[in-house]
Amino acid sequence: MFETIETSLEQGILTVTLNRPDVLNSYTYKMSEELEQLFQNVKNDDSVRVIIVTGKGRAFCAGMDLSEGEDSFKVDVSAEEFRDIGGKVSLKIYELNKPIIAAINGPAVGIGLTMTLPMDIRIVKKDTKVGFVFARRGIGPEACSGWFLTKHVGIGKALEWMYTGRYISTKEGLEAGLFQYEVEDPLQKAQEIAQDIINYTAATSIAFTRELLWKMVNAPHPSASHKPESQFLFWASRHEDAHEGVQSFMEKRRPEFSLKASDLPSFFK
Amino acid sequence: MFETIETSLEQGILTVTLNRPDVLNSYTYKMSEELEQLFQNVKNDDSVRVIIVTGKGRAFCAGMDLSEGEDSFKVDVSAEEFRDIGGKVSLKIYELNKPIIAAINGPAVGIGLTMTLPMDIRIVKKDTKVGFVFARRGIGPEACSGWFLTKHVGIGKALEWMYTGRYISTKEGLEAGLFQYEVEDPLQKAQEIAQDIINYTAATSIAFTRELLWKMVNAPHPSASHKPESQFLFWASRHEDAHEGVQSFMEKRRPEFSLKASDLPSFFK
Amino acid sequence: MFETIETSLEQGILTVTLNRPDVLNSYTYKMSEELEQLFQNVKNDDSVRVIIVTGKGRAFCAGMDLSEGEDSFKVDVSAEEFRDIGGKVSLKIYELNKPIIAAINGPAVGIGLTMTLPMDIRIVKKDTKVGFVFARRGIGPEACSGWFLTKHVGIGKALEWMYTGRYISTKEGLEAGLFQYEVEDPLQKAQEIAQDIINYTAATSIAFTRELLWKMVNAPHPSASHKPESQFLFWASRHEDAHEGVQSFMEKRRPEFSLKASDLPSFFK
Repeated sequence: MFETIETSLEQGILTVTLNRPDVLNSYTYKMSEELEQLFQNVKNDDSVRVIIVTGKGRAFCAGMDLSEGEDSFKVDVSAEEFRDIGGKVSLKIYELNKPIIAAINGPAVGIGLTMTLPMDIRIVKKDTKVGFVFARRGIGPEACSGWFLTKHVGIGKALEWMYTGRYISTKEGLEAGLFQYEVEDPLQKAQEIAQDIINYTAATSIAFTRELLWKMVNAPHPSASHKPESQFLFWASRHEDAHEGVQSFMEKRRPEFSLKASDLPSFFK
Repeated sequence: MFETIETSLEQGILTVTLNRPDVLNSYTYKMSEELEQLFQNVKNDDSVRVIIVTGKGRAFCAGMDLSEGEDSFKVDVSAEEFRDIGGKVSLKIYELNKPIIAAINGPAVGIGLTMTLPMDIRIVKKDTKVGFVFARRGIGPEACSGWFLTKHVGIGKALEWMYTGRYISTKEGLEAGLFQYEVEDPLQKAQEIAQDIINYTAATSIAFTRELLWKMVNAPHPSASHKPESQFLFWASRHEDAHEGVQSFMEKRRPEFSLKASDLPSFFK
Repeated sequence: MFETIETSLEQGILTVTLNRPDVLNSYTYKMSEELEQLFQNVKNDDSVRVIIVTGKGRAFCAGMDLSEGEDSFKVDVSAEEFRDIGGKVSLKIYELNKPIIAAINGPAVGIGLTMTLPMDIRIVKKDTKVGFVFARRGIGPEACSGWFLTKHVGIGKALEWMYTGRYISTKEGLEAGLFQYEVEDPLQKAQEIAQDIINYTAATSIAFTRELLWKMVNAPHPSASHKPESQFLFWASRHEDAHEGVQSFMEKRRPEFSLKASDLPSFFK
């Protein structure tokens, strides 16, 4: 189906692999379109419980493919119509109703790094090369990274990294909150977390949690959280998964949930 | 007065102890009503300078009392009217005009942990059991934790903890910002901070600070802070406590402030 | 030109030195007016690429000059008209279109610390004395610190520091995110970062980045970032610096950018 990415679904985990290993999986318009399409489709696919994004070969994604030189940024639309392609993918990721984990298996530079910011958890290979290099190319933050980066790290680190465009040590990224884990094998760690989610939790709980937390991150008042939390609790308490959750807990066994993410009504206006 | 909680007031510190030690202080409708009532009353009680919340016995609060099984979540109201009981308490805590410190003396699970999120400072006993277990029970984040958790930790950690429902090591919680201190005796540390506040600071300064910081945490522009800060500064400079603050500083002695929290006008629309 | 501050411009770096060393650079109305004036002027000065603020002698700024005792806060305006002088400076800093780095070379207390919060990066001298002492003087947070402090550190630390008014160890400040670096020579570190920015990045990229990140830090939805990022990308791709950015990268040489910060149109409504 896809030219620039590879997908495989196993036991509820959809692994998306950026697949241009000869050019360090550098980003193209085609790759962007394919990612956008994929994330659009996967939203309604209940067979997918968790998504992992990683790169083929030794890199995650080395940034925008600049092989066409200065033409790389050229497009045939007006300034008003133009939309950054990375931003379009980021907004699709934002709308997902399942967890998405970045397994950053090697260098992640420019769009290769900003594309992971709307993902929920970032696991990076120890001591690999990462950086927000835009200002060194005469361009600026994209993929909605202006918004997403400040959800992960304090504005001091965010500004310094974007201002200098320098490579960031993965340890510095970990301590600042850019990465949640720094390990030798990011894909394995991502699979462990995915397995934990799939084995022990309800798909509707997870879908609700994702929408709630991303929507509340900058909401001005806690009451914004109270209404949807109350409505979900009311709804869940009248469905079989909350029953199974309590029963399995009291019987000290693993729960077997039956609802699908698509069963969840929307509790947000 | 109360069945499920115990209160004692000493030298300006109100200690609230969750008091169902035989069942690890598990949360009930009754406990929730009593906490809501208490926080409502204490707001206007100038004899209370700082509130500490802790648990009787070896636990802080082991979560919702599920002894009634699946009926634990059942209520006799419509979906529209239903309000999560934990969220109602959280909103009362949000409205307080004095510092509130959680001394998490032992296991804090589910509502036992989310109830501490609207508190100002969380001090946890080293290596005790804490976790956001909701997705494992087929329910979701409550007590306005969708909003409060993202004020304390980056969204990456918040999502992972809520997605997996796993127990979190207190060290991981400390490093991520969930806890401000990880110690052997949380109550003692809470008392030290409370004493510092009571001995050295003005009650009106503290009341203004609490409202300001919680309201500014997600305000879009810094000018939102400039107006109330200016008005408080103007007001304070015309009252005796700012005079005493400057005098005591110049005389190198401890200040003796006389204003009460209830003397503070509202500087927020 | 100025009485209380000293400025020097060298190779694109404007160094602003608080210059009342005999009184630990304590803050006065005069100093505040001069800083406000300076930041107003520097915004349109393309010869300045990066601003560094530091203190003359052994202190950065020991706080408000209280030598006039209780009169220090007195002013001849109404409560409605009164504006905190520190807040006026903070808002000017917020509006800057170039990076501003605080090189905190010694004690920074009260306004001496809060004045650094709207700056982009804070570099502190190891083990120097810093603290938010307002509540001990009977006053409250100022310089828009109610807003700025919660952009840098979690609300738990922010509240504890403001509640107790205690001195904060620079290590604690570093770990919480208040400082980005804790070093022996803050000015030297600040100069290194400034040099990195000047040598390798485009002035328009930096100006756009600063406005974007500070505006997005509390924006409710990522789409707020998508529109300006797209418009800047479109604009930049039609100007010489993006061309030079790509060319220099492909030729593995240092870029030579020609656009000035003042060439940047506004992409924010």
